[in-house]
Amino acid sequence: MSFQEQLAARQAEVEGWLQQAFQPRADIRFNGLLEAMRYSLLAGGKRLRPVLVLEFCRCCGGDVEAALPVACAVEMLHTYSLIHDDLPCMDNDDLRRGKPTNHKVYGECTAVLAGDALQAEAFRTILTSSLPADRRAACAAALAEAAGTDGICGGQFLDMAEEEKNSTDSELTDLQARKTGSLLMAACRMGVLAAGGTPAQERAAAAYGMAVGAAFQIRDDMLDELASEAELGKPIGSDKAQGKTTFMTLYGAEKCAALVKEYTDAAVSAVSGLQNPDFLQTLALSLADRTH
Amino acid sequence: MSFQEQLAARQAEVEGWLQQAFQPRADIRFNGLLEAMRYSLLAGGKRLRPVLVLEFCRCCGGDVEAALPVACAVEMLHTYSLIHDDLPCMDNDDLRRGKPTNHKVYGECTAVLAGDALQAEAFRTILTSSLPADRRAACAAALAEAAGTDGICGGQFLDMAEEEKNSTDSELTDLQARKTGSLLMAACRMGVLAAGGTPAQERAAAAYGMAVGAAFQIRDDMLDELASEAELGKPIGSDKAQGKTTFMTLYGAEKCAALVKEYTDAAVSAVSGLQNPDFLQTLALSLADRTH
Repeated sequence: MSFQEQLAARQAEVEGWLQQAFQPRADIRFNGLLEAMRYSLLAGGKRLRPVLVLEFCRCCGGDVEAALPVACAVEMLHTYSLIHDDLPCMDNDDLRRGKPTNHKVYGECTAVLAGDALQAEAFRTILTSSLPADRRAACAAALAEAAGTDGICGGQFLDMAEEEKNSTDSELTDLQARKTGSLLMAACRMGVLAAGGTPAQERAAAAYGMAVGAAFQIRDDMLDELASEAELGKPIGSDKAQGKTTFMTLYGAEKCAALVKEYTDAAVSAVSGLQNPDFLQTLALSLADRTH
Repeated sequence: MSFQEQLAARQAEVEGWLQQAFQPRADIRFNGLLEAMRYSLLAGGKRLRPVLVLEFCRCCGGDVEAALPVACAVEMLHTYSLIHDDLPCMDNDDLRRGKPTNHKVYGECTAVLAGDALQAEAFRTILTSSLPADRRAACAAALAEAAGTDGICGGQFLDMAEEEKNSTDSELTDLQARKTGSLLMAACRMGVLAAGGTPAQERAAAAYGMAVGAAFQIRDDMLDELASEAELGKPIGSDKAQGKTTFMTLYGAEKCAALVKEYTDAAVSAVSGLQNPDFLQTLALSLADRTH
């Protein structure tokens, strides 16, 4: 199988599991909530984070099928954070992945609740999976760490505060490491933890996740200025228009491209000691070149 | 020690642990987020849910000190749900426990994030506690179940939808069991799970929690009409003013009082087989009589 075929197969596994888990139910009166959760969860993302969970699990000799709920849980957590980020009181975005944002379709109240419920379901999904209890606890702890005050929430808080001031590069790096990097890193670690991998494997996963996260965010800032709105599926130049500091305003296009390459090389090298790391290495390289 | 002294001692344990865990930190730039979390978390609630965790743990022969993080985690989850319930897009409340609501003080954006972070921290706190991994996983799973689609979020979704229609008694009972009962029941079960208790003890805890939750909510509806604003620390008669169905509009004061007694008796009887259940029994009785 080519890299693209392998990636598509992984994405299909995730898609199928999520479709199954979030079917409408006959026994409840709150299908409206479930529908709002499903709308954003099944809006066709790249499923990058679940793919990382599954591939790190495979590279550590784990049972990939048993890790599938863990992988999908990371996507639930990610989707919740996107729904809340888009809210009028946050980024106030109307468009996400080329579709109206959750609150535009279901209203703010339901969007807040859909995000809240997706966060809880992410933990429930891991904690009721068929993995041994110690692996369930370890995976859920890694997710909680990424989701909490020091991770996504702290990062988003800084991002909102950011609008009123110019940031230094270390401040922006810290913000992005929390807001975006923490969950990517957690996804990689959770793949190792689901497989019952070694501390050395977990360190390799963390290093890969951190590097991919850094490259990802710099590439994002480049695309935000360089790509077309149709390619991105969301308004372009919005950060610049808001006067926000980005890696592009700090470094310019040339240094950004060099940093993306540097972080990507670090990611490739971080996993070189794992079994069959080719997919993860090609994935890192493909993210560095992505156009949307 | 009298019941009141025991209760005060438990509450002080919880208060002390939370104070310690949510201290301002020198190493971060997002103390504003931490401050908003602390504001609502340390606003002086009754700490009913953590007390239930600790007491069920004790009645099952568990290590109460080791269960303290689990108890405090339930309060974090409860506090998050209150912050989000108060948001302008939900109940739009200005006052909670006699103080301005979180978004009134910190703004909507920070209030949403403070709630989001408190949910994540609740799970993180359980999952990184000193309990054995299987007990951590079991406690966190019970919390996730109560917090998710079928629990608090489903209940709050129904509560918001409720405003536009009249509910039957079974609909209102279902709504309240999800919105309020689920977390009270989870708190009781988590005490047993933290102690490594038996399935029979867990069933007793669930029955107690369900009955206390039902009595609690009916009593709440009674107080909402009968108590003064100063006693409750929040606007009175707000449900009635919104035309919402409550247990008072369905049943009237007399039948409500009879139901509170019935559920309270059920709670008292549910735990009669546990070791030294006096505290839990007195607690159920005291909740039935509460005036705020």
